[in-house]
Amino acid sequence: MYWKEAFIKTLREDPVEAELSSHKLMLRTGMIHKVASGIYSYLPLGLRVIQKIERIVREEMENAGATELLMPSVIPAELWQESGRWQYYGSELLRIKDRKGNDFCLGPTHEEVITDIARRNLQSYRDLPVNLYQIQTKFRDEVRPRYGLMRGREFVMKDAYSFHDSEASLVETYEKMYKAYQSVFERCGLEYRPVEADSGAIGGDRTHEFQVLADSGEDVLVHCDQCDYAANQEKATTRRNQELLPTPENAPAMEQVSTPDKKTIEDVATFLGIKEEQSMKMLIYSVNQGEYLVSLSIRGDLEVNEIKLKNFLQAESIEIPAEDQLIEEHGLTIGYLGLPGFSNEAIKMHLADYSVVDMQDCVCGANREDTHVLHVFPARDMKVDQFLDASFARATNPCPKCESGLLKERRGIEVGQVFQLGDKYSKAMGLSVLSKEGRPVHPLMGCYGIGISRTAAAAIEQNHDDDGILWPYAIAPYHVTILCLDPQKQESADLARELHDQLKAAGIDVLVDDRKERPGIKFKDADLIGCPIRVTIGAKGLKQGVVEVKQRNQPEAEKVALDQAGSHLVELCQSYQ
Amino acid sequence: MYWKEAFIKTLREDPVEAELSSHKLMLRTGMIHKVASGIYSYLPLGLRVIQKIERIVREEMENAGATELLMPSVIPAELWQESGRWQYYGSELLRIKDRKGNDFCLGPTHEEVITDIARRNLQSYRDLPVNLYQIQTKFRDEVRPRYGLMRGREFVMKDAYSFHDSEASLVETYEKMYKAYQSVFERCGLEYRPVEADSGAIGGDRTHEFQVLADSGEDVLVHCDQCDYAANQEKATTRRNQELLPTPENAPAMEQVSTPDKKTIEDVATFLGIKEEQSMKMLIYSVNQGEYLVSLSIRGDLEVNEIKLKNFLQAESIEIPAEDQLIEEHGLTIGYLGLPGFSNEAIKMHLADYSVVDMQDCVCGANREDTHVLHVFPARDMKVDQFLDASFARATNPCPKCESGLLKERRGIEVGQVFQLGDKYSKAMGLSVLSKEGRPVHPLMGCYGIGISRTAAAAIEQNHDDDGILWPYAIAPYHVTILCLDPQKQESADLARELHDQLKAAGIDVLVDDRKERPGIKFKDADLIGCPIRVTIGAKGLKQGVVEVKQRNQPEAEKVALDQAGSHLVELCQSYQ
Repeated sequence: MYWKEAFIKTLREDPVEAELSSHKLMLRTGMIHKVASGIYSYLPLGLRVIQKIERIVREEMENAGATELLMPSVIPAELWQESGRWQYYGSELLRIKDRKGNDFCLGPTHEEVITDIARRNLQSYRDLPVNLYQIQTKFRDEVRPRYGLMRGREFVMKDAYSFHDSEASLVETYEKMYKAYQSVFERCGLEYRPVEADSGAIGGDRTHEFQVLADSGEDVLVHCDQCDYAANQEKATTRRNQELLPTPENAPAMEQVSTPDKKTIEDVATFLGIKEEQSMKMLIYSVNQGEYLVSLSIRGDLEVNEIKLKNFLQAESIEIPAEDQLIEEHGLTIGYLGLPGFSNEAIKMHLADYSVVDMQDCVCGANREDTHVLHVFPARDMKVDQFLDASFARATNPCPKCESGLLKERRGIEVGQVFQLGDKYSKAMGLSVLSKEGRPVHPLMGCYGIGISRTAAAAIEQNHDDDGILWPYAIAPYHVTILCLDPQKQESADLARELHDQLKAAGIDVLVDDRKERPGIKFKDADLIGCPIRVTIGAKGLKQGVVEVKQRNQPEAEKVALDQAGSHLVELCQSYQ
Repeated sequence: MYWKEAFIKTLREDPVEAELSSHKLMLRTGMIHKVASGIYSYLPLGLRVIQKIERIVREEMENAGATELLMPSVIPAELWQESGRWQYYGSELLRIKDRKGNDFCLGPTHEEVITDIARRNLQSYRDLPVNLYQIQTKFRDEVRPRYGLMRGREFVMKDAYSFHDSEASLVETYEKMYKAYQSVFERCGLEYRPVEADSGAIGGDRTHEFQVLADSGEDVLVHCDQCDYAANQEKATTRRNQELLPTPENAPAMEQVSTPDKKTIEDVATFLGIKEEQSMKMLIYSVNQGEYLVSLSIRGDLEVNEIKLKNFLQAESIEIPAEDQLIEEHGLTIGYLGLPGFSNEAIKMHLADYSVVDMQDCVCGANREDTHVLHVFPARDMKVDQFLDASFARATNPCPKCESGLLKERRGIEVGQVFQLGDKYSKAMGLSVLSKEGRPVHPLMGCYGIGISRTAAAAIEQNHDDDGILWPYAIAPYHVTILCLDPQKQESADLARELHDQLKAAGIDVLVDDRKERPGIKFKDADLIGCPIRVTIGAKGLKQGVVEVKQRNQPEAEKVALDQAGSHLVELCQSYQ
């Protein structure tokens, strides 16, 4: 491919609207073109990357036994009403009316459509398991689209859905897909981690996210430095002592102390001259929008992981009520709460995070204004109804899975998720098949997504330097860039064309920069676009009978004799595969 | 691919909602699944065909020097307001509002988006010509979606747009694309015709449609039986005499005759005992919604081709005014009009179709109630301001291009169109580049569409019989179907798998029907799905050491020895390529 046909136009400067490196670099290389907020055209350079990722995904889906279909973007409301999501999905669902006034939405995901297909095609257990996928343009009307393709409104996604007559069959396909996802991201040349993720309040269902590691990632993930344990921060746990430390015999008695206006942990610790880890806080949560209240005690320096708390309670929602309400309705001394000596009928249950079991001689609120209590020994002084893991696992915490590992924190970008859905959709939408025993049963479903366009952005986020992108070979828009510094000279132009043709014949994607531009601009653009291998054809080299070959991820270039150039480049490309 | 994984479910009966064969067969074979009116899922069997067509289109686009990109489905109103089409496009344009109340539409076509890309990327004539294409899902909110994929609302289309700094460059690319389209439809194995088509009132622009021939086609096309002349019926012309036949010396004088209540040509001809071809009619047209009136005289048995008339007048619109209006406002004797002796200031211009030049001694209205006039000789009796071609070319008319050919009529399905757009969009949207002379100029544009999903439907429309589809090899969902009649018998199952693997390794797409169904059902489904080659593995054959091989387009099957089967099938497949 030659420059003009490749339709590349690079920008000298970072576009002001872009914060994230991948967004900047995609705009600067002309991979994408903004059409509206969160809506982009994929220009040829960008589409090449997308299509390479798609090809890898298709191959791995086929290896995993999934079959491709294509569902529509415009979906009738009726299907979403059947599943109940028409009401619950919120404004990310772009609802539209056709010319006849019928309701539709732009599909952000396709559980409803696939379940409708399944109920019209599947009749008995003999038709199962089946695994269907599509690569399709989806739309989610994000409230704040940003970061280019990272959080766009219109985006390319691979979504797969599987149907099963048993838990075992679901697990088998889930594991196949898990492995297929590993192959996809490995083949894309990305450093990634599959992590356990939260699957919501309805227990039993399993889910993993696939995270591309990048310092700029929105997600925090936690993994063991010894074993394969990895989870996103919402889900991650750490090894905890389950038994309360016994209170020593010579433990001092509790003692109230005046702490005027010291409501925060930081203030109290400073005022009393203790570490924050020696303090304990108690928070009140309202469950299911006021159905009942619970208290949660936790070490003072730790944050509550509300997702874990919500899952533990199997609640639809939890929230901290407004202070006024707690004070006025329930007479609670907010800012000075503590479980020792606490008594209030409004609180249905007293919970404590496992961080409390290791505490001794600590400080907490005394349930009186401007007062705390010293020398609290949980085993002696607190009546906890249930302990639970309600905090975030952190770097240096012990691994919950192996004996010796310590946890590490990394940032990541979620590019895929696999999920055991259970019978949620098959039940809601009346999909049933005849079991071996001849009874109608609701098939179990799995669903499996990969953000294709987001993977392209994540690849850049992980692989770039100050000069531009460093594409992994497998998803580079071109493998080799040939810089023809003097395109007007016959000898240079001929050599560029010869090399181009030779490499192309070997199945290598080549871009020839034959613009009438200064060499400096061509070098800069080549680094910016970041194809793995650069070949420079210049007047000086031609005199010496050489071209210069440089790999984007190596500091030094090498000189290669003209008659060796083609075969050398083919070999070099093979070394990347 | 095995049956379950292929996710095929056939229907025994024609679905009641389908009229057209392709629609029936796509539903019966389970290629598509209706989601809403004009909106379909492509199930695996259907998607395979779509993707095969896409692959051919991509290769031919690349050969023609076009580069692929991908524009969004959701397009901001601003771009359509700039081009002016936001107002004019009508209700086929599905307009939507996002969560912030901003206006968007679902793209039915992408001239605006590509012109926006071009004006941000193209700077000078050196960037031209450039030709960009996409394969994308489009939406047109048809008032009456019907015929399955033939006239759907959501559909897959290839659209390309080219930009040029000269007419010559536009023509060059147009011709390249024309040839690429020929290759596409040839490679798809379809009988097709490129035909000249109407390009609307703004003269000068050229356009061709690509029509797949099929008796059920909506379009009528006219082509020469000798040369390559072909046009759709709106555009087609025939060789016409341009000069009025001279009036013979002994021509009788005009003579009025009473024709009470005989207003139609048929009634007049019957009443007077003449052929309809001997009668002449005169129609009144209102131009540009009442701007002015013209008359058009034409041989009585011919229909007016209003598109030709409109183009001739370079009008925005033409229409026949209401009778009442012509009678009351202009005192015209509707039903008895004729140019001889006609006088009315309201008519700005008197036009006549070329059919009139050959007429002698004919009959027309006398401009008096219940009266016609006999012995009209146009050269003597009519004052025509301008002659034009305002009728439809028909079968047996002489070819307008060659000396000896006669026209034939065929029906077709429009699957592609190439169009020279000129500077309509570049002007409206402020796209300009610097010319060689350093002046800003508006590039000329071409646009080029192929209905991918419609091509799949047209292929079936052209290639089917009472039993089902006869797929052209290149776009068949599978090349070979292996019917394993006794899948529970090890020997049969093993042989099916061996053949499957051998053919797959040779790059042949194979479907194994290993269902536990009666042979009759398998044979029927194989004919219905219509893959080119069918192999039957049955108990009787296995005893004789043979399998049965049948081509879908041949009446007879042949027996092939087991050890020859694989290589025989590979050769047979090669013979199709």
